[in-house]
Amino acid sequence: MKIGLIGTGNLAFHLVRGLFKHDITFQTIFGRNTIEGELLARKFNSTYEIDYNFETLCNFDLIIIAVSDSAIELVAKQISSFLNSNTLVVHTSGSVPISVLASYFKNVGSFYPFQTFTKLDKSLSWRDISIFLNVETKETTNLASQKKYLLSIASTLSEKIFWLKDEDRIFLHIAAIFAHNFSNNFWRIGSEILKSKNLDFSVLLPLLKQAILKLEIMPPQQAQTGPAIRGDNAVVEKHYQLLQQNFPDYAELYKINSLSINKDLDLT
Amino acid sequence: MKIGLIGTGNLAFHLVRGLFKHDITFQTIFGRNTIEGELLARKFNSTYEIDYNFETLCNFDLIIIAVSDSAIELVAKQISSFLNSNTLVVHTSGSVPISVLASYFKNVGSFYPFQTFTKLDKSLSWRDISIFLNVETKETTNLASQKKYLLSIASTLSEKIFWLKDEDRIFLHIAAIFAHNFSNNFWRIGSEILKSKNLDFSVLLPLLKQAILKLEIMPPQQAQTGPAIRGDNAVVEKHYQLLQQNFPDYAELYKINSLSINKDLDLT
Repeated sequence: MKIGLIGTGNLAFHLVRGLFKHDITFQTIFGRNTIEGELLARKFNSTYEIDYNFETLCNFDLIIIAVSDSAIELVAKQISSFLNSNTLVVHTSGSVPISVLASYFKNVGSFYPFQTFTKLDKSLSWRDISIFLNVETKETTNLASQKKYLLSIASTLSEKIFWLKDEDRIFLHIAAIFAHNFSNNFWRIGSEILKSKNLDFSVLLPLLKQAILKLEIMPPQQAQTGPAIRGDNAVVEKHYQLLQQNFPDYAELYKINSLSINKDLDLT
Repeated sequence: MKIGLIGTGNLAFHLVRGLFKHDITFQTIFGRNTIEGELLARKFNSTYEIDYNFETLCNFDLIIIAVSDSAIELVAKQISSFLNSNTLVVHTSGSVPISVLASYFKNVGSFYPFQTFTKLDKSLSWRDISIFLNVETKETTNLASQKKYLLSIASTLSEKIFWLKDEDRIFLHIAAIFAHNFSNNFWRIGSEILKSKNLDFSVLLPLLKQAILKLEIMPPQQAQTGPAIRGDNAVVEKHYQLLQQNFPDYAELYKINSLSINKDLDLT
């Protein structure tokens, strides 16, 4: 089986690394970033091609497009004339519908791992990561075999594989944005408030670790603590006023998030 | 040294348990909840007294008031007539100023552990938890010895002890509310969006664990990912519209938090 990868970013890195551990190598890795691409290819027994040098793409069974959302369609267009019509082309995006690919290819899909990827993070294990797959094909007789093929790749990495339609996948992405991106922004805000008192962000880490451990024994609905859920209006109001005076950018965030936890709070 | 504890909640439980491991026991644990109080006292070699039965409080060196913020002043008032005037009285609140105690006692302070506590959570270790202390006394000759005494108790539990004034401690509490309480609310929202697609919250856990691990190698400022920080206006706008249609309660939260990450986004 010949597999190609387009992209050399964080997800691309972990995908190559994860599959390599199970003896699946990418024939070719394409990317704009020559240094990253060469390094990745050399380390994981692949070859590197500069992005746009797509003429080597014939006779691939699977192409994984792991580039930023906004570049997916452009890449699809660029590679479309070089691919064998039987190639399955998937992207790794939470938000981009696979119809973007269907304009250019017969067999299209998505391979969406529900995780945050950083190259620096060498401890990442694919085993527990949920991967959400979707495949569509213009030849319905082909669908079962294409799905089976993508499933075989994904199952190599993880035991948690789900089939999910585009219109549902986008809600997963939104859930991840709340649970991760927006939380990370609050960790930043926490770190900035601490910094103003000459305290390092690291004092927050044990709290955050414990908060996640707690989620293993109870759902977040039950794990909620703090003055807002207790309905402690006096404390919430005091915090709100202090923020208005000292961190006006965060005051409205404090208010709207407190009200999201407890709509019965009465804030001026 | 005679130490008394008022409260039998989550923090009280872990305080008794943590100090017991280092051979420090509470002479008496006071609380409204007879079952919790009796259990806690029996398990950790203390005696239990029902709340309001404070006449046994004479000759204590330290009283830790570990009750909810709104009950601290009432408890202080109730116990004030029974205490020896040399007793140090501290509370465990992030937001309540120690002046609330100073109306009733000569030696007052706070003992604020920067952590979330749940009785169910048997894995909790005090070692890494930052504890913020404050002591004030009406007899300044007494201050050093009172501080030393409180420090000796706190140092038994953790290596991370900080002295912090009331007006700074409240900002720590606000930082913790952003970093923990508000994040937990987003985990709840994430879980509710997933539930609407028949997916369990557990698919989010590997993502959240990795997000926290990431913070050990980079600050949250640098760890930020997602469409908002990338300035991917099309994706953010699409999510916002989908939320307005499907989860109207979360649409404004999505918008305000996206703008907090990237104020250059242009959302209708």
